[in-house]
Amino acid sequence: MSENEESQKLSRRRMLGTTAAVAAAGAVGAVAGSAGQKGVIAAADAQPTARPAGGPNRLEVKPGELDEYYVFFSSGQTGEVRIVGLPSMRELIRIPVFNRCSATGWGQTDQSRKVLTEGLLPQTKEFLKTRGGSYLNGDLHHPHLSFTDGTYDGRYLFVNDKANSRVGRIRLDVMRCDKIIQLPNQYTVHGLRVQKYPRTGYVFCNGEDRVPIPNDGSVLDENKKYHAVFTAVDGDTMQVAWQVMVDGNLDNVDADYQGKYAFATCYNSEEGVTLAEMTANEQDWVTIFNIKRIEEAVKRGEAKMVGGVPMVDGRHGSPFTRYVPVSNSPHGMNTAPDGIHVVANGKLSPTATVMDVRLFDDLFDDKIKPRDVVVAEPELGLGPLHTAYDGRGNAYTTVFIDSQVVKWNIDKARRAYKGEKVDPIIQKIDVQYQPGHNHTSMGQTKEADGKWLISLNKFSKDRFLNVGPLKPENDQLIDISGDKMVLVHDGPSFAEPHDATIVHRSKINPVSIWDRADPFFADAVRQAKADGVVLEQESKVVRDGGKVRVYMTSTAPQFGLESFSVKQGDEVTVFVTNIDAVEDLTHGFCITNYGVQMEVAPQATASVTFMADQAGVYWYYCSWFCHAMHMEMKGRMFVEPKHV
Amino acid sequence: MSENEESQKLSRRRMLGTTAAVAAAGAVGAVAGSAGQKGVIAAADAQPTARPAGGPNRLEVKPGELDEYYVFFSSGQTGEVRIVGLPSMRELIRIPVFNRCSATGWGQTDQSRKVLTEGLLPQTKEFLKTRGGSYLNGDLHHPHLSFTDGTYDGRYLFVNDKANSRVGRIRLDVMRCDKIIQLPNQYTVHGLRVQKYPRTGYVFCNGEDRVPIPNDGSVLDENKKYHAVFTAVDGDTMQVAWQVMVDGNLDNVDADYQGKYAFATCYNSEEGVTLAEMTANEQDWVTIFNIKRIEEAVKRGEAKMVGGVPMVDGRHGSPFTRYVPVSNSPHGMNTAPDGIHVVANGKLSPTATVMDVRLFDDLFDDKIKPRDVVVAEPELGLGPLHTAYDGRGNAYTTVFIDSQVVKWNIDKARRAYKGEKVDPIIQKIDVQYQPGHNHTSMGQTKEADGKWLISLNKFSKDRFLNVGPLKPENDQLIDISGDKMVLVHDGPSFAEPHDATIVHRSKINPVSIWDRADPFFADAVRQAKADGVVLEQESKVVRDGGKVRVYMTSTAPQFGLESFSVKQGDEVTVFVTNIDAVEDLTHGFCITNYGVQMEVAPQATASVTFMADQAGVYWYYCSWFCHAMHMEMKGRMFVEPKHV
Repeated sequence: MSENEESQKLSRRRMLGTTAAVAAAGAVGAVAGSAGQKGVIAAADAQPTARPAGGPNRLEVKPGELDEYYVFFSSGQTGEVRIVGLPSMRELIRIPVFNRCSATGWGQTDQSRKVLTEGLLPQTKEFLKTRGGSYLNGDLHHPHLSFTDGTYDGRYLFVNDKANSRVGRIRLDVMRCDKIIQLPNQYTVHGLRVQKYPRTGYVFCNGEDRVPIPNDGSVLDENKKYHAVFTAVDGDTMQVAWQVMVDGNLDNVDADYQGKYAFATCYNSEEGVTLAEMTANEQDWVTIFNIKRIEEAVKRGEAKMVGGVPMVDGRHGSPFTRYVPVSNSPHGMNTAPDGIHVVANGKLSPTATVMDVRLFDDLFDDKIKPRDVVVAEPELGLGPLHTAYDGRGNAYTTVFIDSQVVKWNIDKARRAYKGEKVDPIIQKIDVQYQPGHNHTSMGQTKEADGKWLISLNKFSKDRFLNVGPLKPENDQLIDISGDKMVLVHDGPSFAEPHDATIVHRSKINPVSIWDRADPFFADAVRQAKADGVVLEQESKVVRDGGKVRVYMTSTAPQFGLESFSVKQGDEVTVFVTNIDAVEDLTHGFCITNYGVQMEVAPQATASVTFMADQAGVYWYYCSWFCHAMHMEMKGRMFVEPKHV
Repeated sequence: MSENEESQKLSRRRMLGTTAAVAAAGAVGAVAGSAGQKGVIAAADAQPTARPAGGPNRLEVKPGELDEYYVFFSSGQTGEVRIVGLPSMRELIRIPVFNRCSATGWGQTDQSRKVLTEGLLPQTKEFLKTRGGSYLNGDLHHPHLSFTDGTYDGRYLFVNDKANSRVGRIRLDVMRCDKIIQLPNQYTVHGLRVQKYPRTGYVFCNGEDRVPIPNDGSVLDENKKYHAVFTAVDGDTMQVAWQVMVDGNLDNVDADYQGKYAFATCYNSEEGVTLAEMTANEQDWVTIFNIKRIEEAVKRGEAKMVGGVPMVDGRHGSPFTRYVPVSNSPHGMNTAPDGIHVVANGKLSPTATVMDVRLFDDLFDDKIKPRDVVVAEPELGLGPLHTAYDGRGNAYTTVFIDSQVVKWNIDKARRAYKGEKVDPIIQKIDVQYQPGHNHTSMGQTKEADGKWLISLNKFSKDRFLNVGPLKPENDQLIDISGDKMVLVHDGPSFAEPHDATIVHRSKINPVSIWDRADPFFADAVRQAKADGVVLEQESKVVRDGGKVRVYMTSTAPQFGLESFSVKQGDEVTVFVTNIDAVEDLTHGFCITNYGVQMEVAPQATASVTFMADQAGVYWYYCSWFCHAMHMEMKGRMFVEPKHV
């Protein structure tokens, strides 16, 4: 029996009843506990109980029980964030970010339009004027939570948009994006990670594609004049703190646990513009950024202002960076929970390059050479892309071409690198198929707990019912709590499961009802006040020249206004305030045939602005089921024709 | 132990290993088989095997195994369709329909824009001119597959948009929407069902809201002049076949198994415009449509052309309709698989009204009175909304206010209606919380197999990890194969699980690779031919005045063009043809900072048209992971500035 077949003996969707659990324990073999973090799968512990914390992995979440982990999934080209429960792997909610959402009105409400537009570059605002003012697409690759002291603090989730060079921030108290900025001088934001210590702090953003600066058409096909840029965004203010111009390009990034360094892979040290050029060199590099030196230079005024932000020159020979040669086209960049080891994954090389961050001070002080920071370089298989950790000294690397996850031991890899005859590889498990990112539970923090691994696979082919030419991708769940990895679940996923972060539920504490003082709709409250309206108490129409502001409450099953009148050509803003204070009692506001739709959660205000271009009677209705008489929760907008 | 607690003893995510299965059989009690459709849960049968057909319900789908059913979920306000596998309840794919999709470029590609725009009403096209030409939202309520001879034929899925009065059609061979039309004279499309016999044929569409006809502003707040309209769309041509003006309004609809009748609930016989008015009457009605009589009248030229389509007057006294009084505000309308019984669900009445379609001929011939077609009216609980069937003579009705699904027997309800002392109610099971639609496996066809029931619940409250003020809804899976309903799975769902259709996988046979002769991109092939380009062989730039057509192939990891040049102000159309013929090898085309993104599945062509308003160097990249060197699959668009 192959390892893969063996691993499939345990599916996520099984009840580990007492008897079955014993069999399962046999199937995965004895489990080696370590450091008190892990238990063993034993019959006595296997009886399902509600909401367990710790203990052996449970593969079942019964109706009404809660998952143990939040997984924040990026969604790649859909531009949204998804929250999935683990281990059930059920999608709990979507958070629209860079995309347009028909349900919530994201991209249409005044509140979301502010988020989507105010942080755009001036030239982009100009460009989008004829396109409705905001982008309608995004390519959201990396979701990373804010840290305090080396672990998640539950404040924010930061995300990047590769498609339109943006960084977004999601408030984890309300699970809504509150800020988006577009980075100047930098084309694409590819890798994104955050400062782990003392807190976030910085959000590090890799510029992948080299372009002219400024990119105004004065330089076109002269790629010697292109540049790539690394950006540190201040996560509190969502402003660019500083940028660093680099040699090569920048792929993925991570940071240390001391707040001293960030480091990024470069796959295009050639600075080429074609496939052949980009892959020509046998070695590329990892670029290490010295945060303190950069901060000090910026403080001393040594940065140039470029595109409105301070930029230092971090190309070869600068005090701000060091370039560590690694084999062809490294991709993933992953700091281990031990705070010591950093792995660059080889992609076109079968190796992973392990660096020891304790040596970086000496490297920057020129006491050692760049390659001296490398302490291991195990050969793992074809196409190593990303590495995750279990907190017990082991690493789990996805190898794309081999379609496997490789479990290996960091210490053994160090010993082998020194010449000892020891095989660092512990196990290889097949995944289906072509894995990209992977992630372990709490594995990007100092609290890595070594329970679960998700492998995000790019192809599913025949693993699910055929749904036509466009197939789902496949997020596979692997139990890593024992000596052996065990595949327990195939999870189909719509474009695309690019990356994910697994967070223990103890770290996340959202509200269920909006605070009326929330800044998200503070502009609406301010406007209402100016119009003499108390949003949660009144429904009223205010005419202001050619602008009409319609204020209405909603409480199941009635809107505050059963009808309102405007004139054809008016600019109309409808403010709906949900005065129900009942958890989960969301209202919607949809105007039939007018293309207007938004969601208003309990105690929130949402508003939408549109031109009343069509004359006639237009029904508006509550579009979020709220009550037995939800269907009757409606009213009429009268648009008086111009000629009358 | 309550029934609910008992039912929770079985979760969907359990393995029924031999021992566990025996326990489970005990928990649900002995299972009464009937008519060879059902087996019993027995140890001998419980050992999981791959891809079983029939037999006792399995609650597990192991990694790599396929589900037994496709579930086509509407998504309410998100405007898309979702395909979910059953019993695993994993979302397999999303199909964008009325929404904008950042990943696939739905709403941006020329192919999707044609679908989204060509079927709009003339006044809507005018209205949307300043809004980018197409709606960006939809409210997709009801997904129903085409029939031949009383069961699914795997051709099409039809869906409605309540928000903007549209009907869409999805081709099930490629799982893509190929036609959308907007209905004239009718505001909202609420209920949508299809002709079951001899084939689909007609798609029946309920106009819920009464409005002036025409709705041009000449009539505003004079609701006596409003009308409601019923529409039959020809599912083959996606043209309106005919409309019927009715009294009252129209909520949900269904059709018989003889091709003779369609019938719709009316909750607003009062023709009111406020909540109080709409709910004033103690009785509303079901409107029955006589299809043959309407067709003949249209053929005879007796229909008036209104808004470009033929309309007959079906108000009281017409030969085309009959109005059957039922208690206050009926909602769901459901034909039983026996082809005989039709149930209208009471909503504000605790009853379901059962009609016998065999009596409808006599009703239309005035041999009997409207209420004479009613053969049962069981009292089920507070807020009956929708009824599903198991093919064994039982009905399953959601009761919204009680938050339950009620299993009852149709024959017993008939006997009770005649005065016999018999209780038609078999079991009530709690669901979490507030169920709307429900659906049984194959339950809307003559092949109802009585295995599974999905209850689509509007509130989830505390059933999942807290994800902030906007909660998921909850699609619960219930095993109905035994004597008792057993709740086996809680399924969180983003706005909203409005309705679903469960289809055995034997009915659905999609392709995995596009046919190069597919009509979906025939316009692109035609344009290429006119430009002398063979799409799958050449990459070429064709200038045509201020228009530039860029043709390029894509094959992992390279686009056919590593760069192309246009002038600022050009209208650019980029055609990408994926010449990889490998299943699941989808490419994407994204232009950084240009807001351009689309998906191109194997052997497909997709195109996007945009104005080159920004000068500079803009990288395009493959946005769907395709290869180990996917990151390097990119090129540059040079936009020469105007002033040069």
